[in-house]
Formats: sequence, structure tokens, C-alpha cells
Amino acid sequence: MLSVYGDLLSGNCYKVKLLLHRLERPHRWIHVDILKGETHAPGFLERNPNGKIPVLELEDGRFLFESNAILYFLAHGTPFLPADPWQRAQVLQWQSFEQYSHEPYIAVARYIAKYLGLPEQRRAEYESKRAGGEKALGVMEHHLEANRYFVGDTLTVADISLFAYTHVADEGGFDLHGYPAVRGWIARIQADPSHLGMAEAVAAGQGEQ
Amino acid sequence: MLSVYGDLLSGNCYKVKLLLHRLERPHRWIHVDILKGETHAPGFLERNPNGKIPVLELEDGRFLFESNAILYFLAHGTPFLPADPWQRAQVLQWQSFEQYSHEPYIAVARYIAKYLGLPEQRRAEYESKRAGGEKALGVMEHHLEANRYFVGDTLTVADISLFAYTHVADEGGFDLHGYPAVRGWIARIQADPSHLGMAEAVAAGQGEQ
Repeated sequence: MLSVYGDLLSGNCYKVKLLLHRLERPHRWIHVDILKGETHAPGFLERNPNGKIPVLELEDGRFLFESNAILYFLAHGTPFLPADPWQRAQVLQWQSFEQYSHEPYIAVARYIAKYLGLPEQRRAEYESKRAGGEKALGVMEHHLEANRYFVGDTLTVADISLFAYTHVADEGGFDLHGYPAVRGWIARIQADPSHLGMAEAVAAGQGEQ
Repeated sequence: MLSVYGDLLSGNCYKVKLLLHRLERPHRWIHVDILKGETHAPGFLERNPNGKIPVLELEDGRFLFESNAILYFLAHGTPFLPADPWQRAQVLQWQSFEQYSHEPYIAVARYIAKYLGLPEQRRAEYESKRAGGEKALGVMEHHLEANRYFVGDTLTVADISLFAYTHVADEGGFDLHGYPAVRGWIARIQADPSHLGMAEAVAAGQGEQ
């Protein structure tokens, strides 16, 4: 059976959980506590020398790290990753956008606000993260004004990557009311009967160990 | 003919130039000056709403942005991108590592040191970028101690992505003498008769417009 090392409160880990759920793919979820330094323990570094979650472990003991690479691998051969090279490149384009221009702002603003309680000494950093996050939301809004999903007419791993931190952006202080197309896209994803919310995933998954 | 919008002094753009050169793929290189704000001009934002280079334009006018997505698309069907899904996922793993844990440190340290002249008010940021860059180089060293290339036995776009900023890391104040496996890998890439150096690319390419 596949194993995933991760923490479901992390959007990067939730992405993987959401895809596995949509694929109805049996797996073992192994909770890793970042705050306790578990990602820097020697045993963990053998799984990912970069000391980050999530990490996928195959049945035969091979490891894969980086959330978007894991999504690519799991979605290969399914409707969540188009086979056409141009469409696939567009999926990677939006996933790269997510990792470089979206996550470092929206996820970090959320971390500072929700988990650290917005301490005064990090306020300047928080404001700069807020500005970068608004820019990323603007790019998404622009695209979604003319498209139902990021690539093609159906949900792909590009949407899953961007959904993870966008749908909880309010926890980082972002007001999505100014982004109606983004809100419509979030609602479309959540309306699917086979969707798995982050809170449900946390409730169901953290105890699995 | 393919067109690329970019600046060859940017490692993210040089990656694309290097792959096109290795593929002997004819193309038009259109210089875009970031410092003059050209990436935020309305005409440019139609190519990439995120206002970043490089951008690839196909013969039929379609656009693709994000360097690693462009590399994936151009390398598809060539030896620079393995066809096997597991190997391909590993390529994406290392490219994601590059964009998230390497480039934001090594490229930004180089930018502050080389282009801004290391102003005093950015020294603390520079030192933190240096620390993150050393960590990324350590992860690369660890991998290259046991492998000639990042994925499989030959050069792939994973190597091209990581090579771009690593081989000029000294311009950001990084001393590669502590990373002998990284230096050996750089030398292997540079020794290929069909390699194109960054300085050569700049000398040949910026005038093309």
C-alpha cells in the first residue's frame, strides 16, 4: 500500500490527501510533526534530504518528495492529469505559479496569522506576504473569469494545487469577496460529491499514524 | 518559429536558451528588460498575467510561462525528459526543489550581491538567503555523491534547471569548494561539446531582439 508522510494542516500535504481521496486510492497516512522537528530527524532525512513534507513512499520503498511531483505521479493515467503535452505543460505552469508566486505569500501569511498569532515583530513581513498574495489572487481571478478550471474543462491537479491554500486564504487575512470568479471555482470544487474538505481530512486522518 | 521572451542574465531564462541550444531548435529570442518595467506593460501581461519572464510563444500564438513548464514542453519526446512516469516525477521533484528551496536563495543572493552591490539595508536578508542556499547546495551534494545526474544516467531538464543558478552561485558569494560532487557535475555538463555557457548565450542572444 502507498504511504504518505505529512501533516494535514499543511496545504501541501492536504493536496495529496485530496487527490488520493478523489482517486479512491487506499493508502496509509503517517503523521509527521514539523513543530517537534520530526522532519529533520535522521530517519526522515533518508526519505527527503530536504527535510520537508509531504513524502510519498511506494510499496517497494522508493520515496518521492515535493507535493506537485507527487500529484503528477499519482494522477498519471487518470483524468486529473491530461495526456496531451500542451495541456500537461499548462498544468505544470499553474503548479509552478502556485509554488513560486502563491504559496510563499498566501500560505506564509496564514501561518503567521493563524499559527503564530501575528506577533508584532513579524507584521512587516506579514504585510509584504499579504501584498504578494493579493497579486496571486488577481492572476487567478483573471484566468477564472474566462475559464471554469485552470486547464481544460475539468478538475486537474493544477486546480487541486491551487485550491489547497486558496480556500483557506481567509485564515491568512485575505478577503475573497473581491474575487468572485475565484469564489465560484472554490464552490464548484467543493460541490463535487467526492470532494474531501480540509477539516474532514484532518478529523479523519491525523489519528491514522 | 518559436519565440521566447526573456533576459539571458536571468538563470530562469538561460535554462530555456540552453535547452533550445542542446535541441538545435530554431527560435527567436526577444529581450525583455525587467528593470525598465517591461514585464508589467499591458502588452506583456497578455503573454503572462503574472508579469514574469521567460514566456514561450508557439508558432500559432499560444503562450506558456514558468521556466520549468516550458522546459517540460520543449523536452517532451526528447532524451532530456524521460518517458517513464516515475523518472518523470523525479524530474519534477528536482525542478520543484529548485524553484522552492534553491532559486529563492541562490538566485536572490546573487541578485543582491551582483546587481545591487550588497547594500547595507539588505545585508540581513542577504545572510538569510546565503544560509538557505548552503542548505540547498548540501542537498545537491548529498545526491550527487551517489549519482552522476539528478535523474537516471544522462542529462535531463532537472539538471538544466539546477545548473542555471548553481554554476554562477559564486556571484552570490557561495564557495563551491566545499561541494566537490556539485563541482564535478557542473564540469560534466560544461564538458559536453553541445553545451552553451551563460556568457556565450548573453553575448550571442541579447542583440537578437
